[in-house]
Amino acid sequence: MTNPTGEEFKPYIRDIPDFPQPGIIFKDITVLLKNGPVFKRAVDAIAAQFRDVRIDTICSMEARGFILGAAIAFALGVGFVPLRKNGKLPWHTHRKSYDLEYGVDELEIHTDAINPGERVLLVDDLIATGGTVKAAIDLVREMGGELVAVAFLIELKFLDGRKLLGEVPVYSLMEY
Amino acid sequence: MTNPTGEEFKPYIRDIPDFPQPGIIFKDITVLLKNGPVFKRAVDAIAAQFRDVRIDTICSMEARGFILGAAIAFALGVGFVPLRKNGKLPWHTHRKSYDLEYGVDELEIHTDAINPGERVLLVDDLIATGGTVKAAIDLVREMGGELVAVAFLIELKFLDGRKLLGEVPVYSLMEY
Repeated sequence: MTNPTGEEFKPYIRDIPDFPQPGIIFKDITVLLKNGPVFKRAVDAIAAQFRDVRIDTICSMEARGFILGAAIAFALGVGFVPLRKNGKLPWHTHRKSYDLEYGVDELEIHTDAINPGERVLLVDDLIATGGTVKAAIDLVREMGGELVAVAFLIELKFLDGRKLLGEVPVYSLMEY
Repeated sequence: MTNPTGEEFKPYIRDIPDFPQPGIIFKDITVLLKNGPVFKRAVDAIAAQFRDVRIDTICSMEARGFILGAAIAFALGVGFVPLRKNGKLPWHTHRKSYDLEYGVDELEIHTDAINPGERVLLVDDLIATGGTVKAAIDLVREMGGELVAVAFLIELKFLDGRKLLGEVPVYSLMEY
């Protein structure tokens, strides 16, 4: 899936050099979020890709993923499931470790968050190397969910994170 | 502002004893979020309170606040501004320290997030003692924003967090 209209949103993405580490150019989405009509168009553009597919639940990773994921869940009228860092979810959880560029991190999901066979769209703000996304996909599947697709506001194509995700359909609004 | 319809949402709030600390009963909103129609009705019920008021921007605190705030911003067609913990925002920030029940924390806002005179609705999932909300209100005002109201999914009335907020209008969908 590609999006020819993604270019219209790029003026609202700000490059931040050396954040959070020297040598990394961070894509700051706050300029886009702050502009009401642009935020709405971006959410609608992503949601539109999935209007003709049966989606039961949106899953997103904290914290920026929550912003896009919750708005898309509302737009599609489906439920929202938060995937969180270790120790943040209050009930019983299932946990997954994954490698970062600098260290190891963990992601958790409530054990009652996904019903077996539930059709899940995973949403995050950005895919870089894909490590976090892969852990999220594993969590959803290990809970019995059927992963329909993953959707991002931004894909850093040069990092080739897609190759980590296997045959999962990937949609990204903007590509760099 | 009160809400007679808040009771319909209470079956979707789960009490978690001793989280995150012994003696605290945590209000878990994930059951509500996961139910698409209920999540939609809750967001619509809060957004409806502000449809006849001019709101330019929704501000929310990470991470659970992002879920409600972003969906309400989308519903109202206005921009969304994230308030984050120390070091998470990539650009220039203005920072505020505040006391927790157990320690001190900090909240940041991008220095270009609010234009002077902008009318802001602050949204979070829950108000307890009100310390985080007060810090968020101060941040918005120090950036020149006009704080129209604060809105919550849940208010723990017995902790009387409102008294910290001065004359700011407070709306909460559910009260305990």
